[in-house]
Amino acid sequence: MMTRDISAYKKLAEKSLEALRLEHETPRGLFAPISYMLEGGGKRLRPVLLLVSCDAVGGDASRCQSQAAGIEMFHNFTLLHDDVMDRSPLRHGKPTVHKKWDVATAILSGDAMLTKATELIVNGLNPDVASEVLKTFNDTAMLVYKGQQLDMEFESRLDVTPDEYLEMISMKTGALIAGACLIGAIAGGVKGRDVGVALYKYGMNLGVAFQIQDDLLDTYGDEKVFGKPIGGDILNDKKTWLLVTALQSGSGKELKKIITGQELQGDAKIAAVRDIYDREKVKERSTQMLETAVSGAISWLDSVKDYITAESYALLRGYAEGMSGRVK
Amino acid sequence: MMTRDISAYKKLAEKSLEALRLEHETPRGLFAPISYMLEGGGKRLRPVLLLVSCDAVGGDASRCQSQAAGIEMFHNFTLLHDDVMDRSPLRHGKPTVHKKWDVATAILSGDAMLTKATELIVNGLNPDVASEVLKTFNDTAMLVYKGQQLDMEFESRLDVTPDEYLEMISMKTGALIAGACLIGAIAGGVKGRDVGVALYKYGMNLGVAFQIQDDLLDTYGDEKVFGKPIGGDILNDKKTWLLVTALQSGSGKELKKIITGQELQGDAKIAAVRDIYDREKVKERSTQMLETAVSGAISWLDSVKDYITAESYALLRGYAEGMSGRVK
Repeated sequence: MMTRDISAYKKLAEKSLEALRLEHETPRGLFAPISYMLEGGGKRLRPVLLLVSCDAVGGDASRCQSQAAGIEMFHNFTLLHDDVMDRSPLRHGKPTVHKKWDVATAILSGDAMLTKATELIVNGLNPDVASEVLKTFNDTAMLVYKGQQLDMEFESRLDVTPDEYLEMISMKTGALIAGACLIGAIAGGVKGRDVGVALYKYGMNLGVAFQIQDDLLDTYGDEKVFGKPIGGDILNDKKTWLLVTALQSGSGKELKKIITGQELQGDAKIAAVRDIYDREKVKERSTQMLETAVSGAISWLDSVKDYITAESYALLRGYAEGMSGRVK
Repeated sequence: MMTRDISAYKKLAEKSLEALRLEHETPRGLFAPISYMLEGGGKRLRPVLLLVSCDAVGGDASRCQSQAAGIEMFHNFTLLHDDVMDRSPLRHGKPTVHKKWDVATAILSGDAMLTKATELIVNGLNPDVASEVLKTFNDTAMLVYKGQQLDMEFESRLDVTPDEYLEMISMKTGALIAGACLIGAIAGGVKGRDVGVALYKYGMNLGVAFQIQDDLLDTYGDEKVFGKPIGGDILNDKKTWLLVTALQSGSGKELKKIITGQELQGDAKIAAVRDIYDREKVKERSTQMLETAVSGAISWLDSVKDYITAESYALLRGYAEGMSGRVK
């Protein structure tokens, strides 16, 4: 089997999406928004992990391209519908689908993406493997919806605990990254449940780390590198690991006043909240939590080190370790 | 095997939905709207046809309850999202989900219904049968979305031809009824493709008949029996079989003026359009088209009469024949 680095896996993921030839599907009104969503680029984290996990258990990633495309299709379906639910005007600096087209188009094209993702996720697999992959995919999808539901319910609450927040991001972000790893392993012909479970847990921890890093970057990132204005989460009172941690601290009351009082706006609000974060060492505590999740991911990976290929182990370990240094 | 009449099949379909015990699923914010959609009642046309088709080929309908629940779940998912896309405030006289809750809830609960439907449609089947059922289900779903997309594109057009309209309703309405029949047959262990294809074509014709009858009832039905105000389609300039037929007639220009002029409103508009329909014998021509579709359904059924059970043949034939006499 050829040895691939992460960029080779990313290229394979891109190739899998191009192979769908969505630009030839009609009616265009249904498919043009789907192409638009998928050409956004991005890290292709989920298909890359799916492909690496496939190779890790002795499978052949080049035969799981349909599954890679399916998991990325599902991810982009959730982004498309989330943007409507959150009324977001921009994604990666481009107008969102419901802004560029309209809400009806965004809903219907998203629905088609979910069905297309389901087609792709089982495509080319023998029926036994397909059944197991489909079950994992559907379970994963239900967790993502439950996570999104909790995230929306959190909007109107100021008493969200760090544990509740962890549960929510485990579902909304962790489950899909975990599911990508497990689906890759199943499609790659993993023997027994142990290795699949370990890769799932690796992905779950990685997903939690990923989300906490996202939360950190929104407040402490470099705007030029991060690609969107810093402090957006603070301005929107978005429940993040930083905010729920600070709300539980000694300065929680003061922070609640800033949020409910609505007197501070713009940069003044960002500065005031960051003052509280500094005082309560929120950045340090969040980084600690991030490191814990990264360590968790690596522990699960180590538990099956002898059962996966050395190349894949190194790539997956590197991916986890790189998470804390992530700048965008 | 026990002999069932349509009402027994309907009871089995209702039981299949109750067995999901959705009232115990959390978070409630995600699942309460799903229960609300499904408790609406209705004819349960799709699961009934799925169950009858299963028995028709020598299967056991009581073992296809999950598939019956899945097809009804999918149907209600499309209704839920269509209501958001069409901004409909009411369905069966009750507030729609996006009115009773909000748009975000309607989108997310609908997404969960689609995934749940996919779970149910393969549940309990052996992997080979599950693969075939899933493929039919996904193909069906894509046709439904394409039909909905065309329906939305028709809104801004006055040059929709009867052929285009037929193509649209074949996808939006016909495909799911056809798919229900084929999935029932596959899950029931149908041998070869011929019987499955014939039941699919039966369902497709039945679906077209069903939609044309719906179009007729909206203009010529009895309000008390039909359950919603008569003439709604005319007031909304909705593209129906009646309207696209009349637009192609000698009175087409006059009709276009009424629609684009927007001078006539309410009952006056309904009366003026009905005058044109009367003059152009639109009711008679639509009834003729309806009968053609019903005959088509029966022809396909007759083509496999010797390969399906006599009881199922009688039920499916009766269902088609009853379509022309349908009053709600």
